[in-house]
Order: sequence, then structure tokens, then C-alpha cells
Amino acid sequence: MIRHTVVFALKHKPHSLEEKRFLADAKRILTAIKGVTHFEQLRQVSPKNDYRFGFSMEFADQRAYTGYNDHPDHVAFVRDRWIPEVEAFMEIDYVPLGL
Amino acid sequence: MIRHTVVFALKHKPHSLEEKRFLADAKRILTAIKGVTHFEQLRQVSPKNDYRFGFSMEFADQRAYTGYNDHPDHVAFVRDRWIPEVEAFMEIDYVPLGL
Repeated sequence: MIRHTVVFALKHKPHSLEEKRFLADAKRILTAIKGVTHFEQLRQVSPKNDYRFGFSMEFADQRAYTGYNDHPDHVAFVRDRWIPEVEAFMEIDYVPLGL
Repeated sequence: MIRHTVVFALKHKPHSLEEKRFLADAKRILTAIKGVTHFEQLRQVSPKNDYRFGFSMEFADQRAYTGYNDHPDHVAFVRDRWIPEVEAFMEIDYVPLGL
């Protein structure tokens, strides 16, 4: 299992229509891509960083993750929505520690 | 539900005894604190950041989270183990988006 997460802030005003639209479209587009499981949209609430949202999703293995990354719907989402609308972000990917 | 996560890097050499000891002690100490649920130890695998591990845990509400933060065993862990052994970290806390 690989858990792909991204914590981010939007350029849009908080609670704006544009913010709501970005989040709704992201959910619709990303969850339709094969291999995406356990998709979550989250609000980042720690005052110790400036990010305001998070997405989390899980893939069975690296092949499924790569398939998502390379999927034309993901590539288009990044190009047409993520890059224009996201102010700042950080990707964090986890696998179980398995000591 | 509040999901408290921290992504971090240790001062210890990878796969060293000190690294293993820190992770094992953290799990033992933190999971024993009241209110901690869904505790996970994770390996950070994205090449897009320099952190190498993550902890994730969930609390029922802010009261449970505050109880954990203020718990003497947590305070002692931060003072005696986290600050001396952790090179860099970032805390990210999530709640469900609930649009």
C-alpha cells in the first residue's frame, strides 16, 4: 500500500465559489481514475503550517500509483486546475514502516 | 475526528540501532497515552521532500487531542527524545473537509 497525500493552499478566497468548485471538481475527477482508493478531502487545521487543505488516497502498489500519475485525466487536472489554482503545496507519500 | 500527523527526519543513521530504538520507544510511549487511536508509523517515500518517517494518530475531538498534548508522558517524550533525536519535522493536522 502507498498512501499519497498532498497538503496545499488555494489562491481562492476562503469559502468562495471558486474554492468549492475546485474541491468538488478534484474529487469528481481524481476518484474516477483507476487505482485510486480511500480518497479523502481534508481541512488542515494545525496553526504550525500555512496549508489549508489536504487530499489523501491509497494505491495497492507502485504500478497503480504510476498509472494514476500518468493517466491523461490526472495530467489534465494538474495542468488545467492544480497549477493555476494552487498557491503552495507539499506532497508526502507513505508506506507502512514495516520494521 | 482530528488526525494529527508529523512527518520527520532523524539525526540517526538509517537502519541504525538508535533509529530502531527511537521508533520502537515512540510507539510504546505514545500509544499508551489516553485518547490516541489509529496510531501508525510510516515511511515517507516521496523524493519531493527530505523527511523520512511519519506518525499518524487520531483523536475523537479537541479535548482528547489537548489531553494528549498536555499529558506528562507526551511532554517528557518531546523533551527527552523528540528534541534531541529529530533533525527536522512538520506537523499537519486534519479534520474531515465537511463542505
